[in-house]
Amino acid sequence: MESAIPAHLQCPRSRPRRVPDDYVPPYPSFVARHAPTVQRVVMAYFGVQSPTPRAPAAEAALAELQQRFGAANGPRHWDRARYTDEAGHDNVFCTAYWDDPSRFDAWFAAHGRDWTRTARDGLGCFTEILRPDVRYYETLFSSPDRSEGIATLATSMSDVVMEHAYWGGARDRMPASQTEAMEPSGEPRIERDGARTSITGHGALCLIRSGQDWSDTDGDERRMYQHDVEPVLRQGMDFLRDRGLEVGCFANRYVTVEDAAGRPLEKSYGMSWWKSLAKLERWAESHPTHVAIFGAAMKYLSTLGPAAKLRLYHEVTVARADEQFFEYLNCHPRTGMLRAL
Amino acid sequence: MESAIPAHLQCPRSRPRRVPDDYVPPYPSFVARHAPTVQRVVMAYFGVQSPTPRAPAAEAALAELQQRFGAANGPRHWDRARYTDEAGHDNVFCTAYWDDPSRFDAWFAAHGRDWTRTARDGLGCFTEILRPDVRYYETLFSSPDRSEGIATLATSMSDVVMEHAYWGGARDRMPASQTEAMEPSGEPRIERDGARTSITGHGALCLIRSGQDWSDTDGDERRMYQHDVEPVLRQGMDFLRDRGLEVGCFANRYVTVEDAAGRPLEKSYGMSWWKSLAKLERWAESHPTHVAIFGAAMKYLSTLGPAAKLRLYHEVTVARADEQFFEYLNCHPRTGMLRAL
Repeated sequence: MESAIPAHLQCPRSRPRRVPDDYVPPYPSFVARHAPTVQRVVMAYFGVQSPTPRAPAAEAALAELQQRFGAANGPRHWDRARYTDEAGHDNVFCTAYWDDPSRFDAWFAAHGRDWTRTARDGLGCFTEILRPDVRYYETLFSSPDRSEGIATLATSMSDVVMEHAYWGGARDRMPASQTEAMEPSGEPRIERDGARTSITGHGALCLIRSGQDWSDTDGDERRMYQHDVEPVLRQGMDFLRDRGLEVGCFANRYVTVEDAAGRPLEKSYGMSWWKSLAKLERWAESHPTHVAIFGAAMKYLSTLGPAAKLRLYHEVTVARADEQFFEYLNCHPRTGMLRAL
Repeated sequence: MESAIPAHLQCPRSRPRRVPDDYVPPYPSFVARHAPTVQRVVMAYFGVQSPTPRAPAAEAALAELQQRFGAANGPRHWDRARYTDEAGHDNVFCTAYWDDPSRFDAWFAAHGRDWTRTARDGLGCFTEILRPDVRYYETLFSSPDRSEGIATLATSMSDVVMEHAYWGGARDRMPASQTEAMEPSGEPRIERDGARTSITGHGALCLIRSGQDWSDTDGDERRMYQHDVEPVLRQGMDFLRDRGLEVGCFANRYVTVEDAAGRPLEKSYGMSWWKSLAKLERWAESHPTHVAIFGAAMKYLSTLGPAAKLRLYHEVTVARADEQFFEYLNCHPRTGMLRAL
């Protein structure tokens, strides 16, 4: 067992971990390990929004974006996902990851900035980017042999880590939590330029991507996931989408991952923008909708034990204002961080 | 809204609270306020154990004890409760509270010490006492107008407090948590003298008394408590009783409160001895049995809203070794802290 915080990012604590030194988690989990040279990463969401499902123009825009990912300095990893939003619009986005901000900057200037600068007939487009310091995000995986999200850029997975399976574990896995409360500061700033809205969120804005992969499940396990877990998860995701502002969640997308051609995979994730890590912690640990998700997942996992083939993971990030970039072009006003205004 | 930590016990923190300054709990709860002159209290459990339900000798012993409570320097409050233990024995105990340790000492020397020094034919007897500093325990009540346990000695209830409705709230309500981790230290010490076993537990031993009072409920609410909540609570209590050592719980008693004559009231509580506050926290926040209790309670309370007439409370205490007193006379070996050996 080892700490989720890699040795080179450990420092004298002014803020204690929530669990004592002899804590042993009841089941194994793993975190992604970047090369120690990685100091900052980029997580970029490029989305297209259409009132019509699978609008050809949207698919064409994505195909072009995906081609651009292959250009010089493109992302080391990207994936694609789809969801129907609170206004009934079809949204598809590609999520792209870099671990070298200068390469991202070069790529973005040449191939990415246009995404929300080029009006597309009948479509909305959005770009949502964080470029956090590695001390300000954490990952967690139920098994170490399939990476998702930012972890696809890691050089390895950790051994079993100590800081998980208790509330507050996400905070304790973030190196910054050794010395910082990561409380929000300031107000979002907004700039409108015709149909385009640019936002810089407040300090310590929080993002979570939390996913499940049921592609390896079959038989009873698959039925249990689909009948006992997924509907409860969906209820919680719908709550955050529709009433998230009550609990500090600006926007939530419960998406199905798909391949480059738009065919659904047996993977989904929720990605949501939060006022703060603390607000996310409170919802997760005490809101009836997440308590129900947690209870359903516990029952599922304790019934199946180590034989469970469902894979779970998440990444949680806290970003300063100057590490954020949000642009929305012709999107409806409940899109993403537009709801923070 | 106010802090659960009374002003005269607040001090500069070296250990942060788990929630930020702007945290607002989603529903109200209250804590007991002692007079500021109270520095230490005594919580004393005097029990009798019999293989036969309602053995006349046990009832007689309790009647005598209850009479002694009326003597000089007796407890300011006591109550009585019954449960059937893991060995199938009938256990009845009186719980008595003092807020002046010198009065307790005087009473105990004259009337209490004998409890486990006088063999009673066919009966086991036990005495379990903590005398904690007021900085090392906390209380919580769902409504401010009916006290239980140590709170019966308070001069008032607080206004709505901030530090509740999140995991770690109990710790944050304890004044000592401002500067101390309250981690366990040392090993229990044991002395045997014939049929009597005396124990001094390790440092930072933890006790919880956590109760429910359904006497005001009726109709659908009562049915919901009895059918949807109580069975789930009982399962969790049974787990702690039978398999508690797996999670750091030495002993658990899920008791029915009764009147002085042994007639059951519509109140129950769990009282359990723990290796540490941290072990109690881990069970409460992540063990399937307590996640199920929490989920059932959340569903109940969110269905009923402020109309709920069920009353909930608890008190959690952390005690140094020299604040503990445990004696067992002719009790079976799975009684109370005997299981810590």
